Amino acid sequence: MSLAPWRADISKALHLNRSLPNARYLQLATVNSQGQPRNRTVVFRGFLEQTNQLKIVTDRRSLKIAEIKYQGWGAICWYFPKTREQFRLNGHLKLIDASCPDLSLQAARIKTWEQLSASARSQFAWPMPAQPRSEKIEDFAVSLEEQLQPLENFCLLLFAAVEVDHLKLRGEPQNRYIYRLSDGDEWSMVEVNP
Amino acid sequence: MSLAPWRADISKALHLNRSLPNARYLQLATVNSQGQPRNRTVVFRGFLEQTNQLKIVTDRRSLKIAEIKYQGWGAICWYFPKTREQFRLNGHLKLIDASCPDLSLQAARIKTWEQLSASARSQFAWPMPAQPRSEKIEDFAVSLEEQLQPLENFCLLLFAAVEVDHLKLRGEPQNRYIYRLSDGDEWSMVEVNP
Repeated sequence: MSLAPWRADISKALHLNRSLPNARYLQLATVNSQGQPRNRTVVFRGFLEQTNQLKIVTDRRSLKIAEIKYQGWGAICWYFPKTREQFRLNGHLKLIDASCPDLSLQAARIKTWEQLSASARSQFAWPMPAQPRSEKIEDFAVSLEEQLQPLENFCLLLFAAVEVDHLKLRGEPQNRYIYRLSDGDEWSMVEVNP
Repeated sequence: MSLAPWRADISKALHLNRSLPNARYLQLATVNSQGQPRNRTVVFRGFLEQTNQLKIVTDRRSLKIAEIKYQGWGAICWYFPKTREQFRLNGHLKLIDASCPDLSLQAARIKTWEQLSASARSQFAWPMPAQPRSEKIEDFAVSLEEQLQPLENFCLLLFAAVEVDHLKLRGEPQNRYIYRLSDGDEWSMVEVNP
């Protein structure tokens, strides 16, 4: 595979914004079965090896699982505060859960788990998200032993972009570039009005 | 009208994050006519007086206009880096353009225009967004005189939330509260598992 041309822009932005922890936070929009949008912050976990797909992690019990099954398209908005630039990515979402039979994707799921911090891991063992708050503090205590293998609730979520809209707010006027993936799997780029 | 209970949380977050210009940036997701999500950063322009509606501005030529006509539901994700908290708002979008006959909403549109900076105003006179970049630099030059009245392309966008999900990442475990608007126009709140 070849690196998509927008990858260099994202790498540069990640590098220049590396002092900000939230430079790795992005907003992922999905559509629910009523056709309404939903939007939340997720953490960028790098690119899947040998691909241009972004890695995100999610909990099997989260509402976005059903949303993605209903509508596989997702929209990412990623703003970098220090360099004042925005990437908007439209593309397809693919969920890799514990039952995924593809061995290399399952290996990627396990590897992504291993790269999580202990506190990020423990969340997958917490009580059911968005349900009335559990009063028992021990429900939120997860031993390190339990975290050696990926927990059942842990899913890897892959995002494959087909369009990337890069807006640089610095500059007067601003600069904007749109990248599109053709049916032939080739990326093209056009500079557009901001 | 009474202030929605989550307004105090947003006011507090805005205050504590006031040193960061991007604390006023939020991500707005919409759905296009193909049922796909779209997502972009917009600037919070305050609340519409005497309401709990968020004010955003947009260009009549932007794709989100057609999206909002197709699907009036929107989803806002608003992350505050300094206090490490996220608000997710689901609700309805309402567009106030130059032809809106409601006098008080038209007045709000004009007032919002007047509060924009000169550079924010001039964008509404720039060449068609997302079209191949105009080579003529004078296309992007807008006299201050032209900016006295709201330009035709300038629209006020109002967002009326029906659900607000407030996640505070600080705290071990994290804290999360969901506010919901009832049919009787009353807000309720429940503390939930993060």
